[in-house]
Amino acid sequence: MARKFVYFFGGGKAEGKGDMKELLGGKGAGLAEMTNIGLPVPAGFTITTEVCDHYYKISKKYPQGFEAELKKNLSKLEKLVGKKLGDPNDPLLVSVRSGAARSMPGMMETILNLGLNDQSVEGLSKKTSNRRFALDAYRRFITMYGSTAMGVPRHKFDVEFDDIKERLTRVRLNVPRNRPILDTDVNETELENLIPRLKAVYKENTKKDFPQKPEEQLTGAIDAVIGSWMAEKAVTYRRVEKITGLLGTAVNVVQMVFGNMGDNSGTGVCFTRDPNTGENIFYGDLLMNAQGEDVVAGIRTPIHLNDLERIMPKVYKQLTQVRTRLEKHYKEMQDIEFTIEDGKLYILQCRTGKRSPMAAFKIAVDMVKERLITKQDALLRLTDKDIEGLFYPVIDPTIPMEELKHNLFATGIAAVPGAAAGKVVFTAKEAEDWTAHGKIVILVRKETSPEDVGGMHAAKGILTATGGKTSHAAVVARGWGKCCVVGCEDLVIDYEAKTVSVGNTVIKQGDEVTINGSTGEVFKNALKLRKPELPDAYNTLMQWADQIRNLKVRTNVDTPYDAENAIRLGAEGIGLCRTEHMFFDTDERRMAIQRMIISEDEETRRKSLDELLPFQRKDFIGILRAMDGKPVTIRLIDPPLHEFVPHTENEQKHLAQRLGLPFHQVKRRIERLHEANPMLGHRGSRLCITYPEILDMQVRAIMEAACECQKKNIKVFPEIMLPLIIDVKELSILADRARKVAEKVMKEENVKFKYLVGTMIEVPRAALLADQIATVAEFFSFGTNDLTQMTLGMSRDDAGRFLPDYVDEKKTGILKNDPFQSLDQDGVGLLIKMAIEKGRKTKSDLKIGICGEHGGDPSSVEFCHRNNFDYVSCSPFRVPIARLAAAQASLKYPVKKAAKKPVKAKAKAKKK
Amino acid sequence: MARKFVYFFGGGKAEGKGDMKELLGGKGAGLAEMTNIGLPVPAGFTITTEVCDHYYKISKKYPQGFEAELKKNLSKLEKLVGKKLGDPNDPLLVSVRSGAARSMPGMMETILNLGLNDQSVEGLSKKTSNRRFALDAYRRFITMYGSTAMGVPRHKFDVEFDDIKERLTRVRLNVPRNRPILDTDVNETELENLIPRLKAVYKENTKKDFPQKPEEQLTGAIDAVIGSWMAEKAVTYRRVEKITGLLGTAVNVVQMVFGNMGDNSGTGVCFTRDPNTGENIFYGDLLMNAQGEDVVAGIRTPIHLNDLERIMPKVYKQLTQVRTRLEKHYKEMQDIEFTIEDGKLYILQCRTGKRSPMAAFKIAVDMVKERLITKQDALLRLTDKDIEGLFYPVIDPTIPMEELKHNLFATGIAAVPGAAAGKVVFTAKEAEDWTAHGKIVILVRKETSPEDVGGMHAAKGILTATGGKTSHAAVVARGWGKCCVVGCEDLVIDYEAKTVSVGNTVIKQGDEVTINGSTGEVFKNALKLRKPELPDAYNTLMQWADQIRNLKVRTNVDTPYDAENAIRLGAEGIGLCRTEHMFFDTDERRMAIQRMIISEDEETRRKSLDELLPFQRKDFIGILRAMDGKPVTIRLIDPPLHEFVPHTENEQKHLAQRLGLPFHQVKRRIERLHEANPMLGHRGSRLCITYPEILDMQVRAIMEAACECQKKNIKVFPEIMLPLIIDVKELSILADRARKVAEKVMKEENVKFKYLVGTMIEVPRAALLADQIATVAEFFSFGTNDLTQMTLGMSRDDAGRFLPDYVDEKKTGILKNDPFQSLDQDGVGLLIKMAIEKGRKTKSDLKIGICGEHGGDPSSVEFCHRNNFDYVSCSPFRVPIARLAAAQASLKYPVKKAAKKPVKAKAKAKKK
Repeated sequence: MARKFVYFFGGGKAEGKGDMKELLGGKGAGLAEMTNIGLPVPAGFTITTEVCDHYYKISKKYPQGFEAELKKNLSKLEKLVGKKLGDPNDPLLVSVRSGAARSMPGMMETILNLGLNDQSVEGLSKKTSNRRFALDAYRRFITMYGSTAMGVPRHKFDVEFDDIKERLTRVRLNVPRNRPILDTDVNETELENLIPRLKAVYKENTKKDFPQKPEEQLTGAIDAVIGSWMAEKAVTYRRVEKITGLLGTAVNVVQMVFGNMGDNSGTGVCFTRDPNTGENIFYGDLLMNAQGEDVVAGIRTPIHLNDLERIMPKVYKQLTQVRTRLEKHYKEMQDIEFTIEDGKLYILQCRTGKRSPMAAFKIAVDMVKERLITKQDALLRLTDKDIEGLFYPVIDPTIPMEELKHNLFATGIAAVPGAAAGKVVFTAKEAEDWTAHGKIVILVRKETSPEDVGGMHAAKGILTATGGKTSHAAVVARGWGKCCVVGCEDLVIDYEAKTVSVGNTVIKQGDEVTINGSTGEVFKNALKLRKPELPDAYNTLMQWADQIRNLKVRTNVDTPYDAENAIRLGAEGIGLCRTEHMFFDTDERRMAIQRMIISEDEETRRKSLDELLPFQRKDFIGILRAMDGKPVTIRLIDPPLHEFVPHTENEQKHLAQRLGLPFHQVKRRIERLHEANPMLGHRGSRLCITYPEILDMQVRAIMEAACECQKKNIKVFPEIMLPLIIDVKELSILADRARKVAEKVMKEENVKFKYLVGTMIEVPRAALLADQIATVAEFFSFGTNDLTQMTLGMSRDDAGRFLPDYVDEKKTGILKNDPFQSLDQDGVGLLIKMAIEKGRKTKSDLKIGICGEHGGDPSSVEFCHRNNFDYVSCSPFRVPIARLAAAQASLKYPVKKAAKKPVKAKAKAKKK
Repeated sequence: MARKFVYFFGGGKAEGKGDMKELLGGKGAGLAEMTNIGLPVPAGFTITTEVCDHYYKISKKYPQGFEAELKKNLSKLEKLVGKKLGDPNDPLLVSVRSGAARSMPGMMETILNLGLNDQSVEGLSKKTSNRRFALDAYRRFITMYGSTAMGVPRHKFDVEFDDIKERLTRVRLNVPRNRPILDTDVNETELENLIPRLKAVYKENTKKDFPQKPEEQLTGAIDAVIGSWMAEKAVTYRRVEKITGLLGTAVNVVQMVFGNMGDNSGTGVCFTRDPNTGENIFYGDLLMNAQGEDVVAGIRTPIHLNDLERIMPKVYKQLTQVRTRLEKHYKEMQDIEFTIEDGKLYILQCRTGKRSPMAAFKIAVDMVKERLITKQDALLRLTDKDIEGLFYPVIDPTIPMEELKHNLFATGIAAVPGAAAGKVVFTAKEAEDWTAHGKIVILVRKETSPEDVGGMHAAKGILTATGGKTSHAAVVARGWGKCCVVGCEDLVIDYEAKTVSVGNTVIKQGDEVTINGSTGEVFKNALKLRKPELPDAYNTLMQWADQIRNLKVRTNVDTPYDAENAIRLGAEGIGLCRTEHMFFDTDERRMAIQRMIISEDEETRRKSLDELLPFQRKDFIGILRAMDGKPVTIRLIDPPLHEFVPHTENEQKHLAQRLGLPFHQVKRRIERLHEANPMLGHRGSRLCITYPEILDMQVRAIMEAACECQKKNIKVFPEIMLPLIIDVKELSILADRARKVAEKVMKEENVKFKYLVGTMIEVPRAALLADQIATVAEFFSFGTNDLTQMTLGMSRDDAGRFLPDYVDEKKTGILKNDPFQSLDQDGVGLLIKMAIEKGRKTKSDLKIGICGEHGGDPSSVEFCHRNNFDYVSCSPFRVPIARLAAAQASLKYPVKKAAKKPVKAKAKAKKK
């Protein structure tokens, strides 16, 4: 049987179908689908991708029988529409567009208004009673056809048109002084003069007259579209986007319709539900007697759909039927473009409609209630961006673009979403002081360190000149969901003058700024913000998510306050409680930790640690109480000691004075703490190997806190976590010591409860030797921040200088994503899989979690689900995101639920 | 059959054998062996380890029949020797010593002179005509027996003896004023008075009289030795040293012999060959009428073996027979302890003799010539220390210990062996200037950076206050075999005052110091050094090594000079030529690279690179010429750019002036280059991703140099190596670019030759994804320095603060070795194995080498051999070590040589 080369659609039925994308391209299949479900789509036909394939395979020739089929379909179209191509009275015009099975936006050619010639342009003019429109359409057609089909450089046509516009700039008929001349300002007469000039350009460059025969125009246009498939830019695009396996492009020849054919014509856009609120109402507006570009020009004010109901009740009714039809068919809120030509409704396009986060939740939940979709569909439809959008304040979207532009000061890296406005301060201390006096401040620093944590907490937002998305500032801010922009490299910060400047613009301490952590933008002045709100639909949806997911979701928090907040956001435990931030909470604590570090003898160290113990215990009590029996993983001290001490001479002098030590001694000790690569230095469990008394104090504080809670009938489940382990012997030495202290405290307090001792897997060597490490560890928690840094040999604080080149698909595309944002599944992921396999080989019920920044990234959460993690842990504000992502992962990769194993709690607790 | 509990030896035959270590312990087996081969060993018997085992298994009881067997053997001994235990006229004395299958030095007990009592002491006195000796032996026996067998605290006996010595200090009969009182100063009368006092101590503490019955003494002593097996210190020792699987200790009861029985008695030590030169002569000396401790006291001058020949020709002849016998038996140079008792020769101990490096080579080669051993034996017998000892100058070994002690200034980490003396300077520039003026200098720095390379090269030795064995200073110095001490943390360096001090001792610029890179010691003043010399035997042995080994040995060098030197040392190519050091060679080069870095636009960068190109080309020509067709792996730029620019304000001002740029611009640019963790920063191939023009210049310089050589009929085989690769796409982008430039240059120059493009595997991710990377790379070179840093999360520059704790077996013993010295085979090794397996799965003939510091470490070389590396590469001075280690590895793990594959040179060169 001969192949079919052309598929017709129109008059309520189509030869093609929605699932024939490979053959008809995305656009062709869509047009067929819409036709088949009864939408009033302009008629036309699609030339298959096989024709394109044949064309390139057989030395640029069309297959036998194709031309006959093309002719037949054109006649069919003319008959159906009742107009003829090139008709001098009422011509049929068509568009000729490319359309492959995968979208390649802007890569291939389109020719509109085909069918116009010196005669038919008059017919169009008469029929539309708009000569300017007809001439303008003709002008466009000549330009598009000349440049696209015949390869005349586009600018040769453009200069002719620009020449006219330039003249108008001088004359300015009916054009306000301060507005540039638009295409629409060019009047009928001007266009009439332009046409012959364009035709002359055409002739000069092609040595042929502009074709007046519509058939010739059509063949030329089809050649052009098929030719564009192999144009260099399209070939490059497919290579870069790794698009392979396509036959070629299809060609869509479609009847053109016009909304400016008089008062019973019009054009508009509508949504099947309210895209802002999600309410189930018909939402949209249109311009009567207008076409698309009039809407863009914004000269006339559109009318609402209600007005259409009044003016053209039949058309309105038809449109509401389309609305119902479409939602039933696509089971999604649709964004519909339509045109009314001479009282006849045409649907030009429909696609899934964009919506606000709040609307996304409402629509999803409503559609489940309406039985349009299942709960599973609803869950799979929402994204992390939707959740983020609910939680963070945003810059008031009604602020005009010009105002924003005018205030834009600099752009950095969007680290923590949301927006904040406040007065600029440059030190953590000022941030605390000013906030104490009721002021709202934005803390601006070159970079932040653990010393700044107090001030960071006080500030409404944080802005740094250096660092990436996982720099100290970003990580800490993310933990609190506090708006943060980092790596704003253009900022020149002068701490002494207390100014921050970009070029000649200087912002002084106390001046107001607004930062947008969702975009990285920094604005002068305090812009108006909109508060976040949580709709009912959010709660409904999260409940569904919780019922479905297999992964537990914990949180990374360091304070009782944050722990309570995380519980409200749905956290099921703490996956990472960093104990070092606690040392900075008050001046007293800071002094004790600094004395410990400066001291060079064990006795002073022990004394200072004894001072710190009650503080840590107090914090742990608060955290354990908030978690009420949920697992709480507490990591022992991690950062290198030099992060705890001041680095300017003044601060050091001050410290020396307070410690009653000579300045040079303090200075020397701090100098000795300096490290070339602190990330790979004396930190993590290495500190406890050198100073085991730190471990003793911390474990004691944890266990005393737990005992106290238990005595007050608050359930506890502490998990002591040792960071930066590289060897089973190292872990075994420290775990033994920790267990000894723990048992001792429980004996002293005469209290018993289950606790675990485990380790972070954050150094490649630990992952490689996970089978050995699992003989001692009762749980693994993958510290994917450091594991990523070490596996890729990439410091997150320094990567800003080159990582963008690595992630930029256009430049190199070496990495698919920023590996500090989304887990590098190919590299780091491989190591994690290996570690899990090895670890569970040793201990089949080994508890496995993740506590790096990746624990809140949807695709990383999916990775964790697929690799049988027990839980993910992330900052409180990402807990809902992780809950949703975990549910989505469970839906995409269902797990057979094994019969619940009896919990081996006792056996585990005894392993020592 | 009943078990045998006691093994007798004496009279020319033994019941045991040398291979019965498990049963008789090391000492017992050795005594049996020596007896069996006919050496005149004092007679005795060994109680088996099974007795000890039984004792602890059956609630501290000896097995049935043991006591009878013990008695029988004692009678046998008395009969053989012709003396009886406790005989009042001529008593037999015995020693009772422990001896397990594995040596546990100092851990267990020994009792000497057993058999003495109030009567027999007089017999001994008469027989030796030395009453002082007999009384002293009795004194020692009471003390040893009382403390060891009966658990009386040792110091209770010591105070009595000390009391006498203290009195003598006041009297000073015959004792020079400025010498402390020695045990030997205590005379007969004093000892006579001492004995009753010691017996009183014994009684007071044990409530029993000191046993006069020798049988009681013997049982008590055996109990004591067996009891010491489970003493806490012995148990701890076995745990720490991981000694397991032993039954227990054996007990050796051996006849005591004395060299002070008159003029036909004596005691001495001899070597079967000269331990200093290795010459095949009998070497040694002895003291007549003396015992071991007289030798130690050093009061009398020993006589030579020749003198013995004259005095006691029969004994001398017997001794030479022992010498021949022992060498034949052990096939090794032996160190022999002997005693002549009343004209009768006893061999007390023999063991492999310590020797100088030069002797080690000569002895090994001579023994092969003498057909005592095979070439293989000879090769396996030498160590890297032997080779090192040949190559480096040492501090004159004749300098008295006190002089060394007096001059000791500080001790750091021994980074590069050898010794150097010279005047202290504190900057690289001064090092260069002073050397230019004929002075010999030691460069003292807190740390070094690539900027210092010129001065480091000029200096005779390098001393730094920070850094470990693989810090910049150590690595660079090792490349040149230049003496270097690093991480000398006690040094307080004041660059402004130009002093270095430790405590109150201050050394000023220009003062002389001596550093010992083999021990890490730093001395005040210039000590006398001894020059290195290479014996013929070295060359013979290295030839044998080269015939046997499978691994090729290349070298890491950066200059033509070093390349020539490495060839002389046996290098078979260059495994790592770092191109960045070339940028510091002259002021002109430095200026060009610094201009390139400071410039922010590509054009200035390209211009500066153009200036650098001829310099690099010239160096490459020299290197390629020196290697004459041997493979030369050239690594493209690796360190972060900030290592190339100055960091003090003055230097920066100077640079700004010379570049004709405003200071603030230079300063700002340099500030921006600062990195938090430079090791994981913008370096390696990341620089070429950001600034591909650097790659263009370097590849062009390499290829132009190669073309020029080729035209002059010098063979070339360049291998272009891309560092710090993390992904196949990254490698592919850079390798494609490099190959394009390479092909272009070859076309321009109309020259063709084989070259390769490959990569370092030094980031864990690259190892994990080696299968992908091998699709592009033509060779892998494991950069184990960085791979170790990243896999262990350990910066080599900072590890000095905690790594010692990790390697210290007594403290934690977490790591077996310093992983920067000897490859961490458990962790990093696992990753390497994985990478090789994956890489060769993709490309079965993938060339694989190592170019980290580990390439010159014997156990790492063995690892490389076992894992089918093609070559190792190390600094020139370690090339001979690697050659030997490779041969040893081949002997230990022989490789079946496959039929040689046809070289796929052309096919490889074409893969692009």
